[in-house]
Amino acid sequence: MRTPAEQIGAAEQVARLRLTRSENIGPVTYIQLLARFGSADAALAAIPDLAARGGGRAPRLATAPQVEREMERVAQLGAEYLFLGAPGYPLLLAQLESAPPVLIVKGHKHLLERQCVALVGARNASAAACRFARILAQALGEAGAVVVSGLARGIDSAAHDGALGSGTIGVIAGGIDVVYPPENEERQGAVASHGLLIAEQPPGVEPRARHFPYRNRIIAGLSHGTVVVEAAPKSGSLITARCAAEYGREVMAVPGSPLDPRAQGCNLLIREGATLVQNAEDVLEAIRPLHLGSVAQAREGFGASPTASDAEEADRRTVIDLLGPVPVPVDELVRLSGLPPATVQTVLLELELAGKLERHAGGKVSLISFPGS
Amino acid sequence: MRTPAEQIGAAEQVARLRLTRSENIGPVTYIQLLARFGSADAALAAIPDLAARGGGRAPRLATAPQVEREMERVAQLGAEYLFLGAPGYPLLLAQLESAPPVLIVKGHKHLLERQCVALVGARNASAAACRFARILAQALGEAGAVVVSGLARGIDSAAHDGALGSGTIGVIAGGIDVVYPPENEERQGAVASHGLLIAEQPPGVEPRARHFPYRNRIIAGLSHGTVVVEAAPKSGSLITARCAAEYGREVMAVPGSPLDPRAQGCNLLIREGATLVQNAEDVLEAIRPLHLGSVAQAREGFGASPTASDAEEADRRTVIDLLGPVPVPVDELVRLSGLPPATVQTVLLELELAGKLERHAGGKVSLISFPGS
Repeated sequence: MRTPAEQIGAAEQVARLRLTRSENIGPVTYIQLLARFGSADAALAAIPDLAARGGGRAPRLATAPQVEREMERVAQLGAEYLFLGAPGYPLLLAQLESAPPVLIVKGHKHLLERQCVALVGARNASAAACRFARILAQALGEAGAVVVSGLARGIDSAAHDGALGSGTIGVIAGGIDVVYPPENEERQGAVASHGLLIAEQPPGVEPRARHFPYRNRIIAGLSHGTVVVEAAPKSGSLITARCAAEYGREVMAVPGSPLDPRAQGCNLLIREGATLVQNAEDVLEAIRPLHLGSVAQAREGFGASPTASDAEEADRRTVIDLLGPVPVPVDELVRLSGLPPATVQTVLLELELAGKLERHAGGKVSLISFPGS
Repeated sequence: MRTPAEQIGAAEQVARLRLTRSENIGPVTYIQLLARFGSADAALAAIPDLAARGGGRAPRLATAPQVEREMERVAQLGAEYLFLGAPGYPLLLAQLESAPPVLIVKGHKHLLERQCVALVGARNASAAACRFARILAQALGEAGAVVVSGLARGIDSAAHDGALGSGTIGVIAGGIDVVYPPENEERQGAVASHGLLIAEQPPGVEPRARHFPYRNRIIAGLSHGTVVVEAAPKSGSLITARCAAEYGREVMAVPGSPLDPRAQGCNLLIREGATLVQNAEDVLEAIRPLHLGSVAQAREGFGASPTASDAEEADRRTVIDLLGPVPVPVDELVRLSGLPPATVQTVLLELELAGKLERHAGGKVSLISFPGS
């Protein structure tokens, strides 16, 4: 079996990394560019023209020497790349509209082939809930599932600890070589040694607030289901749960008394339709129907989001007029504009490359409003 | 507006009470007899023949003097009768296949016309859960709902206490003049004075174990929905909840931590589809779609369960051969026998009057097995 790196060729590997490390190119745009131009090299060459049509300057592209330095660093760290669309890339994650173009992983890659369950919750969880999460993770591991979490304080840490013996996947918000929170240094090392550590950002990147929702989508995207233990109504754990729901995965929550404020988020999820779980059997019963085979209609190449080869100026105007600072679903733009979906996608692609469009969860887009404009 | 007693006439009132106080005549049989013979008087006259066809001796029938003594006692107690099929009888309760033929009530009957919510739970509930139930009941009362419960220890008592100011209905397992548990004497009196007290059994009857499931079906049957607060997996509260589900009413439960054994029953209900509720707003939102008007297709006369005027001996044999000590649904008997439903109902009626048939929840029936037979 060939390695992913061999599969897509060294030059294309560099080109893909350049594309994904370039300005204004998020995962959705990356996927659309590859679908339209067939290779990252061709996409890089076309970007200046596309951005000009979007009415902006060309985005700053990452250079070959830049990504070659990154690749060297990844190798030094004992980590490696998994490219979207190449073997080894997790199948469930590949189904996301915003699947990460590339993952940096360190540890036991084979864990990605097993049934994954995300286990997330509050950083400031009660001692009882942390103990519960540890026991639940251990039981899930013993039953053959791989526990995925975010290496945060509280529930995440307890989940990794419980599943360390059977295999656990830690997804971090910063670079693969950056420890956060600091007290998790030993734990993060243990996950890389005995489990698998995953980062989307390049090495050296310190995690910032905006990175955590990206991290959460990977946790939910890798997993057949997400279990939330003790979470506040507005918390990162609930974002992970909502991602799981958006991706058609099972959402599960551990209930608590209405008198316990830390149970509010979980109880809210259950009211919204999440499955109430009390133990590993409940979790396994909930995710059993969701087998790899039935879900994994793996992305075939990059044809999932077609873009037209070109758009008329009038079409471009129509789409722009429909856009504003409030995120709207792309489907709605297609309906309201009366244009072919591929044309709308092309206009959005141009606008994003020109730095004028922002993409949001749930396939929504908005214009970036500049002060005074 | 005429009173129920006037409506059905004094003689028929006595006859109906005789019928319902007679041996081997449960609510389902009572309803079928009235449907078939048009009046309780005619049904009483026909019973010896029916029982003979069922292969047994005629059941001991209550006499007119017996029920007249009961009626006197009910009047002395300041209580009164509500007859199934007559005005004043609660509409939602009348829809039950096993609707009580007659209720004895004391207090403010008008409460039966408002939207009722059952609030039930463990007798040995935690102090926190009792406080929660009291506050929930008070909030439901303030929002205009009538809280129905069973005047048991624990959650039931807390629910009545919380709703006493706005109107509460207490359904008791024994006679209207019997206090159980003893420490609830003052509370039972308060419910009769400020709310409404309901009994199915005649005055003087001490509550026995078998009476409590009957009481529970009335609690669920009166109510648009049932809320369970802290209950063990095998408890009377869960029977009430299952009755509510069987009657097509809303089932709601207050969740708790999996680490709290007293939350197991509620969490189980939620897993089975009950709505998780945390406060009065959640409860009101859940029962709002279920308006009196939409549900109350009140029983028209007694035509709901037709029985044929007669059954052939061969048909009788067919049905009996399909019966055994394990409860089976009547629908299944109809399907397996290939006989018209009315014929099957007639045979079952005869067998019940002969003391050979037992009726169970969910429209199931079984043969009563005698030792050595």
